[in-house]
Amino acid sequence: MIYEDYKIFTPGPVKMSKEILEIGSKQTPYFRNDKFSNVVLNCEKMLLEMVNAPKDSRVIFLTASGTAGLESVVMNLLNKNDRAMVVNGGGFGQRFVDICKSYEINHLDYKVENTNLSDINDKDISDDYNTFIVNAHETSEGHLYDLEAIGEFCKKNNLLNIVDAISMFVTDELDMQKHNIDTVILSSQKGLALPPGLTMVVLNKQALNRINDIQSHYFNFKNYLKDGKRGQTPYTPCVSIILQLEARLEQIQKDGGISSTIKKAKEIALYFREQIKDLPFEEFTPFMPNAMTTLSPTNGKGATAIVRELEEDEHIVVCPNGGELKEKIFRVSHMGDISLEYIDILIKALKKYK
Amino acid sequence: MIYEDYKIFTPGPVKMSKEILEIGSKQTPYFRNDKFSNVVLNCEKMLLEMVNAPKDSRVIFLTASGTAGLESVVMNLLNKNDRAMVVNGGGFGQRFVDICKSYEINHLDYKVENTNLSDINDKDISDDYNTFIVNAHETSEGHLYDLEAIGEFCKKNNLLNIVDAISMFVTDELDMQKHNIDTVILSSQKGLALPPGLTMVVLNKQALNRINDIQSHYFNFKNYLKDGKRGQTPYTPCVSIILQLEARLEQIQKDGGISSTIKKAKEIALYFREQIKDLPFEEFTPFMPNAMTTLSPTNGKGATAIVRELEEDEHIVVCPNGGELKEKIFRVSHMGDISLEYIDILIKALKKYK
Repeated sequence: MIYEDYKIFTPGPVKMSKEILEIGSKQTPYFRNDKFSNVVLNCEKMLLEMVNAPKDSRVIFLTASGTAGLESVVMNLLNKNDRAMVVNGGGFGQRFVDICKSYEINHLDYKVENTNLSDINDKDISDDYNTFIVNAHETSEGHLYDLEAIGEFCKKNNLLNIVDAISMFVTDELDMQKHNIDTVILSSQKGLALPPGLTMVVLNKQALNRINDIQSHYFNFKNYLKDGKRGQTPYTPCVSIILQLEARLEQIQKDGGISSTIKKAKEIALYFREQIKDLPFEEFTPFMPNAMTTLSPTNGKGATAIVRELEEDEHIVVCPNGGELKEKIFRVSHMGDISLEYIDILIKALKKYK
Repeated sequence: MIYEDYKIFTPGPVKMSKEILEIGSKQTPYFRNDKFSNVVLNCEKMLLEMVNAPKDSRVIFLTASGTAGLESVVMNLLNKNDRAMVVNGGGFGQRFVDICKSYEINHLDYKVENTNLSDINDKDISDDYNTFIVNAHETSEGHLYDLEAIGEFCKKNNLLNIVDAISMFVTDELDMQKHNIDTVILSSQKGLALPPGLTMVVLNKQALNRINDIQSHYFNFKNYLKDGKRGQTPYTPCVSIILQLEARLEQIQKDGGISSTIKKAKEIALYFREQIKDLPFEEFTPFMPNAMTTLSPTNGKGATAIVRELEEDEHIVVCPNGGELKEKIFRVSHMGDISLEYIDILIKALKKYK
């Protein structure tokens, strides 16, 4: 298989644990029965606890990747009477903007740079918006927004707060009640450290009340909510990944819950940043999540050359960028089943650039 | 894990081979690179060969389950100027009808019963249709339509022929050129015997020319075709399943190609039907595929009781039905990594009903 025995530091897919991989090696069971329903209901219960969802919140399980989460939320929760502020600080913010455009949703393309929005409450945003949309961790650059300030802003201005938490859940703090979040989008292949293919949408009561009747079958939240009551989905789900999800969530619970996974990710991120501080790499943003470190080479070397050398010479995969930032940055994920010993391998490899 | 060590005879998920399961136990690699592009391009090439697609055909890889294939084809290939004949012989035919309704596509809800449409060329269908839609194997009942007659009909009437082959590809004959098929929909968890989560759409030149500009991002065929040229997808694909797909298609090639897998499935289906012919079960339709046998109990026992007893007493999973047919039929899949020895276990269990 390609890239067997490579060390992986990409922000999705990420390194999975042995236990999860073992489930991947088992026959996919039939799923239209109570046993599988109980798995789904158990996943829903654990997820709701881990995002600290308020009472009566629900989870939708989509067999699809993260963009389907972004798009389906816009399709289901927004219509032409709504007005959304969309934070656009990179590729994924732009994706939300593009989706709003396609569905003709009134929106503000809220371009931000060099800020984590901790000062958003000082801004005078006079327009009459009713929805706020943000990628909590703008993964294209490794930039984490201040969910507490955003939550306060949304509460004050009575905005439905939609948070794409795909690449920060599990590694960085996310609390629907503390942060006044109404909708959370999650995906399997980031901090949850499962194979790609499963996307989840958590909706609180306010978000549930916003669901429209829509044309789409595959992304029709009303049908998912109806079947979800008994732990089923309208269409064949990615059964194997859901079984892996249950095992992963149980593992997180056993290991001390989300606060422990955040602590562990933070420890790894800080350790990595400390160990490489004398190397010719600069942190690209002061607002990095625990999930990832984004580095700019300062020795005149292009980022893609470094990515290529790590892959070819060291069998280490870090993440390149496209577009304007192609030669300026590369990204190192701290998500998944990563130990200090594992990241030491990357640190050692980076030291050759000293 | 639920249902470990159960024998599985459901029409998706189906029994997977050891080789495929082993890939499921490996780390998902990073995919935005040439190595993974080559995997995707190799899958496309092999799939096109196996459905005998004409020159310049293409494959779209969707991270989603089968219904997304049905819906995305309607969204991308049909618009309000088209008129579609939709074969409706059961639950999946009805799904196509419902999708056409949602997207306001002019369509004939072509209800059929007790026919495999081998006589469709005798029918006087005077309306000016331009598209034909059929689930080659109506899996809800185990009914196979005559693709040869349908192909002739479509050619004669100049209809774009859209075939959902999800639960007959690999086990029953499907040949885009011989059967005049323009679009084929495939999914991972049926005859391909992979985990659920991957759906593929094969488009020939005529179908490619019908692609509309649509609102959807996640199902936008134009974007998939553009990125697909270099073996990539617009959004994170289900990398692990695609790696398993490559291994599976290579295995099929090595074992003598699709004609061999069809022969093997036919052998198993005929063996099963022969072995149970003295038992109190009646074949539900005379037009059964190799993929599956649908049985009606003739001893007065309800179908769900049999399904339950097999599961509880014998640890064998066959497939129940819902709706009107709930007590009338149950289904036995012959898809996947099934040997005569494996199906003997089910035959032995059914003999207790003699």
